[in-house]
Amino acid sequence: MPARRDLANAIRILSMDAVQQANSGHPGMPMGMADIAEVLFNDYIKINPGNPDWVDRDRFILSNGHGSMLQYAVLHLTGYDLSLDDIKNFRQLHSKTPGHPENFMTPGVETTTGPLGQGLANAVGMALGEAALAARFNHADATLVDHYTWCFAGDGCLMEGISHEACSLAGTLGLGKLVVFYDDNGISIDGETRGWFTDDTPARFEAYGWQVIRNVDGHEADEIKTAIETARQETGKPTLICCKTVIGWGSPNKQGTAGVHGAALGDEEIAAARKQIGWSDETRFAVPDDIYAAWDKHDKGATAEKNWQDARAAYASKHADDMAEFERRLAGQMPRDWPAQCRAFIEKVQAEGKRTATRKSSKAAIEAYAALLPELIGGSADLSGSNGTDFKGHVPITANDYSGNYVYYGVREFAMTAITNGLSLHGGFTPFGATFLTFSDYARNAVRMAALMRSRNVLVYTHDSIGLGEDGPTHQSVEHIASLRLIPNLHVWRPGDDVETAVAWQAAIERENGPTALALSRQDVDHQPRDAGQVAAIARGGYVLREPEGEAKALVIGTGSELELAVAAADRLAEEGVGVRVVSMPCIEAFNAQSMDYRESVLPSTITARVAVEAGVSDSWYRFVGATGHVVGVNDFGSSAPAGEVYAEMGVTVDGVVDAVRSQLG
Amino acid sequence: MPARRDLANAIRILSMDAVQQANSGHPGMPMGMADIAEVLFNDYIKINPGNPDWVDRDRFILSNGHGSMLQYAVLHLTGYDLSLDDIKNFRQLHSKTPGHPENFMTPGVETTTGPLGQGLANAVGMALGEAALAARFNHADATLVDHYTWCFAGDGCLMEGISHEACSLAGTLGLGKLVVFYDDNGISIDGETRGWFTDDTPARFEAYGWQVIRNVDGHEADEIKTAIETARQETGKPTLICCKTVIGWGSPNKQGTAGVHGAALGDEEIAAARKQIGWSDETRFAVPDDIYAAWDKHDKGATAEKNWQDARAAYASKHADDMAEFERRLAGQMPRDWPAQCRAFIEKVQAEGKRTATRKSSKAAIEAYAALLPELIGGSADLSGSNGTDFKGHVPITANDYSGNYVYYGVREFAMTAITNGLSLHGGFTPFGATFLTFSDYARNAVRMAALMRSRNVLVYTHDSIGLGEDGPTHQSVEHIASLRLIPNLHVWRPGDDVETAVAWQAAIERENGPTALALSRQDVDHQPRDAGQVAAIARGGYVLREPEGEAKALVIGTGSELELAVAAADRLAEEGVGVRVVSMPCIEAFNAQSMDYRESVLPSTITARVAVEAGVSDSWYRFVGATGHVVGVNDFGSSAPAGEVYAEMGVTVDGVVDAVRSQLG
Repeated sequence: MPARRDLANAIRILSMDAVQQANSGHPGMPMGMADIAEVLFNDYIKINPGNPDWVDRDRFILSNGHGSMLQYAVLHLTGYDLSLDDIKNFRQLHSKTPGHPENFMTPGVETTTGPLGQGLANAVGMALGEAALAARFNHADATLVDHYTWCFAGDGCLMEGISHEACSLAGTLGLGKLVVFYDDNGISIDGETRGWFTDDTPARFEAYGWQVIRNVDGHEADEIKTAIETARQETGKPTLICCKTVIGWGSPNKQGTAGVHGAALGDEEIAAARKQIGWSDETRFAVPDDIYAAWDKHDKGATAEKNWQDARAAYASKHADDMAEFERRLAGQMPRDWPAQCRAFIEKVQAEGKRTATRKSSKAAIEAYAALLPELIGGSADLSGSNGTDFKGHVPITANDYSGNYVYYGVREFAMTAITNGLSLHGGFTPFGATFLTFSDYARNAVRMAALMRSRNVLVYTHDSIGLGEDGPTHQSVEHIASLRLIPNLHVWRPGDDVETAVAWQAAIERENGPTALALSRQDVDHQPRDAGQVAAIARGGYVLREPEGEAKALVIGTGSELELAVAAADRLAEEGVGVRVVSMPCIEAFNAQSMDYRESVLPSTITARVAVEAGVSDSWYRFVGATGHVVGVNDFGSSAPAGEVYAEMGVTVDGVVDAVRSQLG
Repeated sequence: MPARRDLANAIRILSMDAVQQANSGHPGMPMGMADIAEVLFNDYIKINPGNPDWVDRDRFILSNGHGSMLQYAVLHLTGYDLSLDDIKNFRQLHSKTPGHPENFMTPGVETTTGPLGQGLANAVGMALGEAALAARFNHADATLVDHYTWCFAGDGCLMEGISHEACSLAGTLGLGKLVVFYDDNGISIDGETRGWFTDDTPARFEAYGWQVIRNVDGHEADEIKTAIETARQETGKPTLICCKTVIGWGSPNKQGTAGVHGAALGDEEIAAARKQIGWSDETRFAVPDDIYAAWDKHDKGATAEKNWQDARAAYASKHADDMAEFERRLAGQMPRDWPAQCRAFIEKVQAEGKRTATRKSSKAAIEAYAALLPELIGGSADLSGSNGTDFKGHVPITANDYSGNYVYYGVREFAMTAITNGLSLHGGFTPFGATFLTFSDYARNAVRMAALMRSRNVLVYTHDSIGLGEDGPTHQSVEHIASLRLIPNLHVWRPGDDVETAVAWQAAIERENGPTALALSRQDVDHQPRDAGQVAAIARGGYVLREPEGEAKALVIGTGSELELAVAAADRLAEEGVGVRVVSMPCIEAFNAQSMDYRESVLPSTITARVAVEAGVSDSWYRFVGATGHVVGVNDFGSSAPAGEVYAEMGVTVDGVVDAVRSQLG
C-alpha cells in the first residue's frame, strides 16, 4: 500500500505535467492542496465514479477554480470517465479538461468555477438544497437525502465580497453539513497577501457563527483527518477548516512564492520537484499501478450507492408517493397536468384583464405556479414585498426548519444569485431570487455564470425602468435590460401586461438549459385584449398584437410598460388614417429562435417605417428597426421625480412615439 | 439654548414632513440617526457651509443613502445653499433634494449613494485620499491636509459584500481618520434582521483590524460624544462606532418596525410623533428660530476655513512649489507642458511601431504619463503584472507610508472601483484600477456610479476577449465591451494598437466629467501605419485607417485586436480588385460626439456594404452597419484553448471578414 504522501504526489505530478504540456495553467494550488484532497477523497467523500449523477453523492466544489488540475487529477485517479488522454489535453479545444472546471464539460464537476468566491456561494446553495430536500423527504423511518458539501477556497475567494454575503447567510442558516477548506498559503498573484489581506479570518468566520478549526497543517494527513472528524461532529454550524499550506509544495525553488501560482514550472524545475518529493519515474504523466489502485473508488463508490439504493427501495415501499415526487423533482420534470393548468391560468388572466403592475402579475403567477410546483424555492434580497415574491404560501427556511420554500437572503444580491445557482445545480429545485433590476448589477457575474452553466434559475427583477420614479437615477435601471440581453444563453422577458407575465413565468420555469430574467414594472400597465391565437403566440417572444384596419404603413415594437404607449400611438395614428401595426416583443431571444418565416410574418421586410419604444437604452433595437429606424428610448440617466414626470422629461410618451412614426413615414 | 434633543428633532420634523409631502421616501433612518447626526455636526465635523468645496473640509458620506432627508435636513439647518423650498421639493423633478443624495445636484453632498455599501467604499477612498495627500504635501513645519472622513452605514451596507472588501482593505491600510457609524437598528426592509443577519459585527470588524466601539446608545448624546472622542484618539486604525438605535425614533406607533423604513408616516402618525417628541408647532416644515440659530455653522465654518487659509498662507511662504502643485492637483488641471508631452509621446510610439499587446502599450503609456502626473494613483485587484499596471515608478501605499502612488487592492474588484471613485471625488487624484475585463462584472454598479457621478476614473480592463485563450469561457469577456458601452456617460476605448492605446490613455486622463474604460488585449496586435492626420484623428473615436486605391465599394469597421483582421481582409480583397475602406473605431462614444459631417465623411451613406469585426457580441454595431449589415462577432461563450484556436472556432478570422464583405457585395 503506497504511503498517503505518494497518493497526494500523484496529484502533484499530474498537475505539474499537464500545466507544462499546455504551457498554461496553475500548478501552485493543486500542489499545495494535494494532501488535503487526498485525505478527503480517500477517506471521507461519498461519491461513485461509476455514476457521477447519483443524487445522494457528496458535492465537491473547487471555489479556487484556477486549481482545476487538482480536480481533474482526483477525478481521473478515483476512476471517473476522465482518461489520461483527457488530462494530457488540459486546456485544449473541446477537451474535458478546460482551464477552469466546467460542470457541462466534465463528469464529476458539480459547478463551474474560476470567478472567485462564487464556488463558495454555490456550495452554500448546494448545502441548503441538501438540507431542504432532507427536511421535505426524509422520514423518521426512512432516509433518502444525507450528504455533505465540501468546498475548497483560497485567499482570493475570501477577499471577494461574495464570500462575506454567502458565509454570513450560511452561518445564519446553520448549514451543518457544509465544510470549507481554506487554503491559507499566504500568497496571491501579486505576492505575499500580508500586504493587502490581513484579516483574522478565523475570527471573521466565528463572527458569522461558523465552527472554525484553526491552524491545521495542510500537509499532515492526521491533522486533516482530525479536522474533518470535528467538522462532521458539528451538525448545527458550517465549518471552516483553516489549513496552513505551502503553495506549490514540492517545487524546491518555487514553492511558497507567487511564481508558482499561475505558470508552468519548466522542465528543469519539474525534474527537481520529482526528486524533492521522491517520485522516481521521470516519464510525464506516469502514475504507478499501486497508486492508481489505492485511489480507485469504483468499488467503494458502487457499494455506497448500493447501500443507498437499498435504503431507497425501503423508502419506496413505505412512502411511494414521496418517492415518486422525489424522482420527479430530481429529474426536473413537470407534473403531468402542468401544461393544462398553465393554459387554464393564462386564459383566466386574459379573461380577467386587470390593469396592474407586472410585478403584481408576477406575484399572481408565482402563486398559481407554486401551488403546482413544490420545487419552486423563492427569495428576495430584502425586497420581498416590493418584488412581490412574498406570495401566499411562502414559508421561510430557517436554521431550525428547512422545510420551507422561501429564503430571506438579506441585502446580498450576488450571493443570492450564486446560491440559487447552487440550488439549481444540486437538483430538486427550481429557484428564483429577486431584487430591483438596477441591482442585477451587483449580481451580474453570477447571472453570467448561470447562463454559462445552463442553470435553470429565474431572476425576478422589478422596478425595471424610470417608472420607478422618485428613488431616482441610482435606482432607475436604464441600461440593464439591454445589458442582460447581451449575455449569451440568458433569456430576458419584459412582459407588457398581466397575461404576458404569466406566459413569461411559464417559459422561465420550463426552460431546462439556462436562466431567465424577468423585468417587471413597478407601476400599473394596461391589460391588452387578445384572441386565443395571440395568447398562444406570446411564448414565441414576439407577435402581432394590433393590426390596423387598412394597410399597415409602419410598425411599432413595444415591450413592458411601454407596450401601452405603442398601442395608444397606433390608435392616435389610426384616427389620422395612418395604419400602424403594433408588435409586442417581450423576449427577443425567444423571438430570434423562431423560424425565418414566422419572424418575417411579424416584421415584414415590406414595412420599412419602424419604431421601437422601450424605456431603456436603444441599442437592442437597431437590428430590428435598422440604422434608419427610430428608437424611442432612454439614453441617459433618469432623475428623481414621480414616474410620469420622468417619462415626460425623457420623451417616452405617446406623443414621442407618434412623432417618431410620422418622421419614419417622411 | 435649545436642548440637544430639540436640535435632533428638527431633523426628524423636516424628514417626516418632506417624506409626507412627497408621499415617497424613507423617514425611518433620519429619525433613527438624528441624534448621532446632531452630535457629529454640531460638535465635531469641520465644514464651512459658505464654501462647500473647501479642500480641507471633513468628508461626510451617507452610505445608507435612502436616509437622504437626514443629510438634506442637516445641510439646510447648518446653512448650506439648500433652502426650505428645496426641502419642500424633496424627490421632485430637478430639485436639489433627489430621492438619494447626488453629488452633482446638491452642495455639501460628497458622493452619490443609494446602492448599498458603496458609500462606505467611497469613504475608504476619501480617507485614503486624505492620507495620501497629507503624506505628499504636509511638512514638519507646515500642514495643508488634515481632515476626517465620517460615514453613516446601515445593516444593508454591512450585509453587502462590498463592505467586506472595503473594510478589510481599510483595516490593512490602517486609515485612522475614517470613522463609521453603524446604525444598528435591527430592521431592514423585510423585517427584523435577526432572521437573515446574525453576524457579530463588532467581532467581524475587529477581525479586520478596526477599532470597534460597542454598544453605544445612538440616542444618548454623551455616549455618542465619548465614542467620537475615542475614535479620534486612535490614529492607526479606522473606527466603527456601533450605535444601537430605534428606526423611526419618535413615531409612537411605527418606530422599531420595518413599516417606518420606506414610506410616509401619514398625517395622523406625524401629529402623534410631534406630540411624542414634544414638538409643539404643528405647521409642516416649521423650525423655530432658536433651533436654526443653534444649528447654523456659518460663523464656525468661516472661522475654521480662515484658520486653514492662514495655515495655507504660511505653507505657501515656505513651500511655494508644493503649494502651486497642490493647487494644480486639487483643481484637476494638467501641467502646462502636458499637451506637448503627450504629442511627443504619441509620435514616438507611432514612429517606433511595435507589434505588442495593447496591455503592454498601456503599461508604456502609464509610464510616460505617470512621470508627468503625480496625481495618477494606480492599482490592481491582484493582477498587477497581468494588467501591466505595475509600471516603473509605482510605489505601494502601505499603512506605514501613504506617500506612494499604487494600491494593491487584493481580489476586490468592486471595492477597488468604489474606492477609486472616492479618491476621484475627494480631489487631488486621477485614479486608475485594473482587472480582467470579465471581472468588470464584479464592479459593474460602481462603474455605473462613476458615470452617474461624473467621476474621473480610468478603468483598466485587460484580457479583453476570447484572445485570453486557455483560461476559458469563465474568463473570456464576450459581452462586456458592448455591455459597458450601454452605460450612459461612460467612455469605452478599445484601442487597436500601440498608438491608439497611447491616445486612449490621454483621452481618459483628460476627461473631466466621467470615467473611461480601456479594453486591452492580452495578445500581441499589429502596429498600424498612419500619417499625422490619422494620428490626430484617433482622438475622434473613429477614423479612416486605410483607403483603397480605387473606389471603396465596402467598408469594414474594426476595433482592438480585430483591427488587424480588418486590414488583412482589405488587403486580400484589394488583390481581387475589391476596394475596401477600413475604419478604426476605438471609441464609439467619442465618435458619436463628432459632427454629422465628420461622421458622414468616415461612414459615407453611399457605402452600404458594411461589415464590423469585433471579438464580442454584435449588438453595438447594428446601428453602424444597419439591419442588413454583417457583424463578425462572438455571440456565444468561448472555450478553453489557445487563443488562435478559439478565434478560428468562433469564425473571427480574416476569412470570416472577407466572406462577410463578399456577401455584402452580393
